[in-house]
Amino acid sequence: MSSGETAVEKPPMRDALVAAAFELFLERGYEQTTIDDIVTLAGVGRRSFFRYFPAKEGVVFPDHERCLTEMTAFLDADARDADPVRRVCDAARTVLRMYAENPTFSVQRYHLTKKVPGLRAYELSVVWRYERALAGYLRARFTGDPDGALRADVIAAAVVAAHNNALRCWLRSDGRGDASATVDHALRQVQATFGARPARDAGPLARDCRDGEDVVVVVARRGTPLWRVVQQVESALGGGTGTGSG
Amino acid sequence: MSSGETAVEKPPMRDALVAAAFELFLERGYEQTTIDDIVTLAGVGRRSFFRYFPAKEGVVFPDHERCLTEMTAFLDADARDADPVRRVCDAARTVLRMYAENPTFSVQRYHLTKKVPGLRAYELSVVWRYERALAGYLRARFTGDPDGALRADVIAAAVVAAHNNALRCWLRSDGRGDASATVDHALRQVQATFGARPARDAGPLARDCRDGEDVVVVVARRGTPLWRVVQQVESALGGGTGTGSG
Repeated sequence: MSSGETAVEKPPMRDALVAAAFELFLERGYEQTTIDDIVTLAGVGRRSFFRYFPAKEGVVFPDHERCLTEMTAFLDADARDADPVRRVCDAARTVLRMYAENPTFSVQRYHLTKKVPGLRAYELSVVWRYERALAGYLRARFTGDPDGALRADVIAAAVVAAHNNALRCWLRSDGRGDASATVDHALRQVQATFGARPARDAGPLARDCRDGEDVVVVVARRGTPLWRVVQQVESALGGGTGTGSG
Repeated sequence: MSSGETAVEKPPMRDALVAAAFELFLERGYEQTTIDDIVTLAGVGRRSFFRYFPAKEGVVFPDHERCLTEMTAFLDADARDADPVRRVCDAARTVLRMYAENPTFSVQRYHLTKKVPGLRAYELSVVWRYERALAGYLRARFTGDPDGALRADVIAAAVVAAHNNALRCWLRSDGRGDASATVDHALRQVQATFGARPARDAGPLARDCRDGEDVVVVVARRGTPLWRVVQQVESALGGGTGTGSG
């Protein structure tokens, strides 16, 4: 793009429709607001609404299509040498950024979605599409592995669950606190369970490993839950940085 | 229940409505079939339909409410000493049994649900309720653990994803093959990742452990993906039974 051009990412009319819709949803309720009410308040025609949103639910989640496209592009641009589990965790952060960009709006929507079953159902179908995008990427990466598709589905579900646990935590705090740190903490648990070595080892330690064939010995009493053994291994691999607790 | 009584679990009228509905859905399509068409074919009044099903979607998934109730009762009856991850895997098998009870019906519904977006959305909301029931149980069991709620959500999502991967596999095979074995295999992966020791060790080996403080030593090169280490640990714990592959 030349310096003379400007990015037109969000047309003002689209923003006006979202703002008008939320003003009305909060004032009189979602079910009690019609598309006609929204376009009247926004000062545009009915056809403008449908140019941007296929239905009333769409105006509640105006950025998910863009976000899904971004996430898919991010996964498609994958360098084959990256740890696939880390890659899907990074992809999930795309969604987090969309929420964190506008805390007030995200918190309002969270409370609205909790109250309206139709919106909850719509949200579930959006979450499902994110999960399938992550699973599709992992299935391709695990081609040829026995149980590759199973592992892909389980990891994608775990990533989405961890992301959503952290996101809801942040939304319940009314968008106060550090959304990224909360989600990073949650995704680190998933990476520790399913991924290759955690990101923090990509420094000097990682070079040690390649040069010196460094070996980790884990001793566990039989009967120890596997997740505790995993924590032990994770902590042995990561040294004493203290980021793998949990 | 005394021997003179008989169980009245599924009223014949309810069954007749489901049978009539599926006959019409397969013949002319889901969207093209009205509730009036269904009650006419079943030879009952419109009010009878709504006595059993809140809406048209309900007749497509007639057993989920009963299954959710059964699953919740199973979790509520939990003996506190059981491994919680094993417990939620066993709970998920309640759902599998519902599908496996009637393969033809389950396969017909699978194809129908794939074609009708409204049914897909309805199914997602049912799956969500199963997942929340499992997560709720695990959250209670993990009370006081740091990150207990996070771990509960992730494990519940992993169980549901593994169950559904196996279930879809079986449905795609047109209900041929052993549904239980397929789901057992998938859930075993989840138990190996998150659970305490797998069920097959609950024999003499388990006694060895308690008596002899048996110890497992795992040696892994740094940089080995954690899931491979977990497979190693799992295989070390399980001995040479060959059930933990994949």
